[in-house]
Amino acid sequence: MPSVRVEAIHVGTELLTFKYNAHSVYLAESIRSLGLFLKRAELVNDDLTELTNAVKGSLKRADLVFVTGGLGPTFDDLTREASAAALGVGLKENLDLVKKIEERFKRYKAPMPPSNRKQAQVIEGAKVLDNDIGTAAGQLVEIKGKMLILLPGPPEELRNTLAKAMPFIQKSFGKGAVLTTAFHIAGYAESKAEQEAKPLLDSLNPEEVTSTILAAPHVIDLIFSIGGEKRAEKMEKIRAQLKTIFGVNLFGEDGQTLESAAGELLKKKGQSAAFAESCTGGLVAHRLTNIAGSSDYFLESLVTYSNDSKVKRLGVKEETLKKVGAVSAEVAAEMALGVKKSSGSDWGVSVTGICGPAGGSTEKPVGLVYFGLAGPDGKVVTEKKLYQYPKERVLLKDLMASFALDLLRRALLSN
Amino acid sequence: MPSVRVEAIHVGTELLTFKYNAHSVYLAESIRSLGLFLKRAELVNDDLTELTNAVKGSLKRADLVFVTGGLGPTFDDLTREASAAALGVGLKENLDLVKKIEERFKRYKAPMPPSNRKQAQVIEGAKVLDNDIGTAAGQLVEIKGKMLILLPGPPEELRNTLAKAMPFIQKSFGKGAVLTTAFHIAGYAESKAEQEAKPLLDSLNPEEVTSTILAAPHVIDLIFSIGGEKRAEKMEKIRAQLKTIFGVNLFGEDGQTLESAAGELLKKKGQSAAFAESCTGGLVAHRLTNIAGSSDYFLESLVTYSNDSKVKRLGVKEETLKKVGAVSAEVAAEMALGVKKSSGSDWGVSVTGICGPAGGSTEKPVGLVYFGLAGPDGKVVTEKKLYQYPKERVLLKDLMASFALDLLRRALLSN
Repeated sequence: MPSVRVEAIHVGTELLTFKYNAHSVYLAESIRSLGLFLKRAELVNDDLTELTNAVKGSLKRADLVFVTGGLGPTFDDLTREASAAALGVGLKENLDLVKKIEERFKRYKAPMPPSNRKQAQVIEGAKVLDNDIGTAAGQLVEIKGKMLILLPGPPEELRNTLAKAMPFIQKSFGKGAVLTTAFHIAGYAESKAEQEAKPLLDSLNPEEVTSTILAAPHVIDLIFSIGGEKRAEKMEKIRAQLKTIFGVNLFGEDGQTLESAAGELLKKKGQSAAFAESCTGGLVAHRLTNIAGSSDYFLESLVTYSNDSKVKRLGVKEETLKKVGAVSAEVAAEMALGVKKSSGSDWGVSVTGICGPAGGSTEKPVGLVYFGLAGPDGKVVTEKKLYQYPKERVLLKDLMASFALDLLRRALLSN
Repeated sequence: MPSVRVEAIHVGTELLTFKYNAHSVYLAESIRSLGLFLKRAELVNDDLTELTNAVKGSLKRADLVFVTGGLGPTFDDLTREASAAALGVGLKENLDLVKKIEERFKRYKAPMPPSNRKQAQVIEGAKVLDNDIGTAAGQLVEIKGKMLILLPGPPEELRNTLAKAMPFIQKSFGKGAVLTTAFHIAGYAESKAEQEAKPLLDSLNPEEVTSTILAAPHVIDLIFSIGGEKRAEKMEKIRAQLKTIFGVNLFGEDGQTLESAAGELLKKKGQSAAFAESCTGGLVAHRLTNIAGSSDYFLESLVTYSNDSKVKRLGVKEETLKKVGAVSAEVAAEMALGVKKSSGSDWGVSVTGICGPAGGSTEKPVGLVYFGLAGPDGKVVTEKKLYQYPKERVLLKDLMASFALDLLRRALLSN
């Protein structure tokens, strides 16, 4: 297993107030191919003293330190200043970089605001990591066997500048790669998944394999990292054992998702799907269309929020709505059949439920949802779920969308 | 300004591999009402030594330390053990807590897996913070004027247990509150926003007011924190100045979003909207329906991904598609008019563009998008945008959805 210690500092007061931190994930993804893992990450305010101390602390503990963000042109972009201070060296304007930034503005026919000149300040002794898609260049300093790398925060720019740093990282810290695979399991509780996987987990040599378990909405992940000899073979053995334990519930690995798994099956079969969404409000369609190439199998989704829309777009009967209400197995079935028929798709999938906070009752509480699935054989099945937890609207939408996508995936597997 | 130093440690290997960290934001939101701010946050692996060192380090620097996550029942939930080790005290099974966890399983008619018993291990001298919605209880320890608080990771459970800790935090660290407001500005570049706000920013006394700037897709945030006397008055003055500088581009504060701003305007006017989405794939609808009560004004969204769907659902003319293609001002106009007419809404909004990675050409590159807006007067306007950056599919969808929502918001303001 790796002995190079890697840490990251993510800069920005927004990360400590209201913006989710995605930087650790982007960075971890990028360095995994070199067999390098983040050991710790810190979120630090746009505060010169705080940031300087954080960089000093990380450089003391780690061999390789990344600092992301804080390389913009505004007054609170302080990564350059803090890093130089932590190293006890100065900053110098790089005229070559000034020219590149000016050229960038010229290309877009905009004058360069004076503040952008600040982005050409480079730490003494640092290599400049050119940013091909923005004005915030990265920087790389090697000092006493350690390496400090400054990268811009926006994900695309982070990847672009990190690519320039990779050969230097490889040279200093490259090592026998580590194979990491995350296995995704649908529809299990965390403790049940762990219990069933326990004999496998107990059989592994912790010197060779590390494992971790993670619960996400509707999905449990089991993640294994293997270093040393024959790691691919060892992973293959784990994969086979997991297949035996979890069967069709094991739906993918690493970047695969319920939507990509369903999408791949549709593509393989040359079939298409259409959706009728009420409570998920377009999230099923959004998740499916995040996948490049989804137009091959995704025809349309009708987000029929109002009853009127359900009647007009999907042919749901007003009588059914009156008799059993929109959140019912009957309406779910009519929605699924309606969208399949009118879109001409092979599969029609529907979701109708109550995400709250208002709209619930004793009979139909928040968390109640019905799914409909109309298949190529023209038959329709429905499913009912009552989510006790969570009861938060956005989380419920996500759970229900996952269940709908999983329903389609399972049907495709057995069809 | 606050002198209580607060730090957080977020536990979980997943946060250093593939899961975005949302914990800092949840926590920061929760403690802001006490005038407390996170000064630093650390993401730490599920590793006993690493976590113990992190807790020790934070306790040395800070007055109040939160540790979130790692309180589950699985083998890699180590927060209890690491915190006890950092404090140099032991853990003891709390029988009262064992009973509560058993009762919880009984209520859902499930047997308690043996691993859940681990969740009743409590740090010596700690108060238990009951978790009303899960099995992971929080814990609170006071030691030498410092406070260490362990909270479960799931947001709802974090908030539930933190509420129990609030009176203790208030008693030890409560102070004159600080007023923080984030002002949201649409359609500005970061450096341009900073330039225009500069006279205002320069006029503020940094002893009284701290400010920061943040760029998000289509939106710039200016965030001000004011402590001491007359903070509400001072904020009101800043608000008025920002309105003068940014006009209708200033669309909201704090939790408000483009979708909530557009939604509030629709509600106020008693008008409704329907959407025809192609490239955004349901994201506009998803964002609008994340808002509780959006059924008051959101009728439907037709995610017409295929040309066939555009013709059938929206009445887009096959001739138009043949002549100018789906990504065109003409089709955007027909989509907006089509969805408005057939849904009977006051407003019809459409988006048709190219999010890539495939499907672009020299004439119609990735990032090209047309918007249509049909208003109550029956007239339709279109807008064309070409996003040079980013070119990533998911980010482009987000930018385009923001633009569509902003287009509707601006039209509602001037209507």
